[in-house]
Amino acid sequence: LGKARGRLMGGSKRPDEFEIIRRFFAPLAANAPGAFGLTDDAAAIKLAPGRQLIVTTDTLVAGVHFPMDETPQSIAARLIGVNLSDLAAMGARPEAYTMALALPRDYGSGWIRAFAGELRRQQKAHRVTLIGGDTVATDGPLTVCLTTFGSVDKGRELRRNGARAGDLIYVSGTIGDATLGLRVLKDDIVGLDKRHAKVLIGRYRLPRPRVRLGLGLVGLATAAIDVSDGLIADLGHVARTSGCTAEIDVDRVPLSAAARAAVALDRSLHERVLTGGDDYELVFTVAKSRRKAVTALARRLRLPLTEIGRMRLAKGSSKYKARPVDARDRGGHLVPLKRTGYRHF
Amino acid sequence: LGKARGRLMGGSKRPDEFEIIRRFFAPLAANAPGAFGLTDDAAAIKLAPGRQLIVTTDTLVAGVHFPMDETPQSIAARLIGVNLSDLAAMGARPEAYTMALALPRDYGSGWIRAFAGELRRQQKAHRVTLIGGDTVATDGPLTVCLTTFGSVDKGRELRRNGARAGDLIYVSGTIGDATLGLRVLKDDIVGLDKRHAKVLIGRYRLPRPRVRLGLGLVGLATAAIDVSDGLIADLGHVARTSGCTAEIDVDRVPLSAAARAAVALDRSLHERVLTGGDDYELVFTVAKSRRKAVTALARRLRLPLTEIGRMRLAKGSSKYKARPVDARDRGGHLVPLKRTGYRHF
Repeated sequence: LGKARGRLMGGSKRPDEFEIIRRFFAPLAANAPGAFGLTDDAAAIKLAPGRQLIVTTDTLVAGVHFPMDETPQSIAARLIGVNLSDLAAMGARPEAYTMALALPRDYGSGWIRAFAGELRRQQKAHRVTLIGGDTVATDGPLTVCLTTFGSVDKGRELRRNGARAGDLIYVSGTIGDATLGLRVLKDDIVGLDKRHAKVLIGRYRLPRPRVRLGLGLVGLATAAIDVSDGLIADLGHVARTSGCTAEIDVDRVPLSAAARAAVALDRSLHERVLTGGDDYELVFTVAKSRRKAVTALARRLRLPLTEIGRMRLAKGSSKYKARPVDARDRGGHLVPLKRTGYRHF
Repeated sequence: LGKARGRLMGGSKRPDEFEIIRRFFAPLAANAPGAFGLTDDAAAIKLAPGRQLIVTTDTLVAGVHFPMDETPQSIAARLIGVNLSDLAAMGARPEAYTMALALPRDYGSGWIRAFAGELRRQQKAHRVTLIGGDTVATDGPLTVCLTTFGSVDKGRELRRNGARAGDLIYVSGTIGDATLGLRVLKDDIVGLDKRHAKVLIGRYRLPRPRVRLGLGLVGLATAAIDVSDGLIADLGHVARTSGCTAEIDVDRVPLSAAARAAVALDRSLHERVLTGGDDYELVFTVAKSRRKAVTALARRLRLPLTEIGRMRLAKGSSKYKARPVDARDRGGHLVPLKRTGYRHF
């Protein structure tokens, strides 16, 4: 931070990179000693003894990860939410982040101010601080890369590959709201009550990373992942890397009242609930003997934690060839899923 | 890494994100235990006791930081070079990096393979390892964000703000080659010998971060910065944050034979040498009493370290109002500089 990186292009009237950093971003780093006021080439991160650093990187591109006309507030909230959700899935406590911002030339001070303002609110809510980064101009869409740092006691991080046959499968909160919210924004759901529509859109626009849940799962969950690509796809990652098949009862997957109302209007949306992304809930596995501890954690956090199935050993010659998620309805019938989650290319 | 992030867009024939990561990027992380084989949401970084983590983020955008038709090899080399140069300026030893890649849809396997191959070569040369990241599709230009981690003994990192009045100013290697190389690529320098042209283009295309020099400057330099925006601009950052004015003799700034040949063809290029970017040499200050130690370090590294001036106290009512760099020629005449370095917007 603090150094311009542009080489091939000319100027314009918006404040230059130094001014943008000084005015809007340096205040976000004011309380971080290792940020050096964003004046140096790099930042320092200090950790308490016995703690281990966890790092995650996510890039959001306008028009790919959110609509081009998304507000700066929503983009900032999504950025922080998506990144902290990855830390939550590892059981890590958020510490700091760096941000690399590629800003289209027609984004002026007003946009940047609103964006930085929401970053400040998110920092306060999650006790996390900007410690470095850079700002560059782009002729392409807005592209923001966040690298986020968390800490966890050494060797205690939650992994995807720790689930064992017999483990119970849990999911936090409610599933499918965000993907339905995006459908509402695209006018794809006809006749939905306005109140429900608002709830769903809110869940899409303001992801709430389950940071406290992640911390509570350290030493309890055998594996965890956040639901960013869709419940079936993400649970599939856990099952595959653990050498298991995840058997779930789709009728036990918790839906909000708003999501239930949407599915009642159009039954085909139920598949979207199971395979759509952006919920940022956690799906995790625990040993059968720890059921009571999960109930106690749910009560302490005032967050529903719902048992939706269990793990069994993967069948077949190769664990990678078995279907990772076996989704059935209450009657035991296999639920056909045309797709298991969004993919990129 | 290992999770798709695209939401709003359809598919194409190139391998999907999972396949790209498995085939091209996971092998780059094979030797890093904290990378978890790139299968988890985040990576872990371990540090030896007494060491402190240094982190830097840089984003490169095609068409902004390098020409659109740059080869994948050159882009990969530049990415690693630019980031390690920031670590070198802090005196940090490179440890690991995460990469967030926003890939245009028409970049196929061949491009990705060449890009990953050069990353592998750079990893080997600098003993640094990929530990995480993500890959997303973009409709804009190629955008790559690297976050790089280094380590330094606690409290021993090199800063920009440590220069004191009386300190000597040194610069490593030769200055201006890269910016002249870019002019050659743009056919802006007429009549230059082919051999010289090749040297200059090579210096632009393959930045060589001064990692070993940075390590050698710990405990020796009072301040350091890498020359990425241009000698005058970057030395200006050191002077300003240190409350000093940097007095330099522009005729002592070391030029390569190729740069001297270019300047001989067109005298106006001398200003470009002083203000152009992308050299990735280090400019640093040392106490006058340590001159011999610098000479010894230059000999040990077989790298020219040239004294080009000294720091004095900034004059004027505010240290931010004084001209940070006082550039004079051998005769003591002030050198007029129309611009002091590239800026972004």
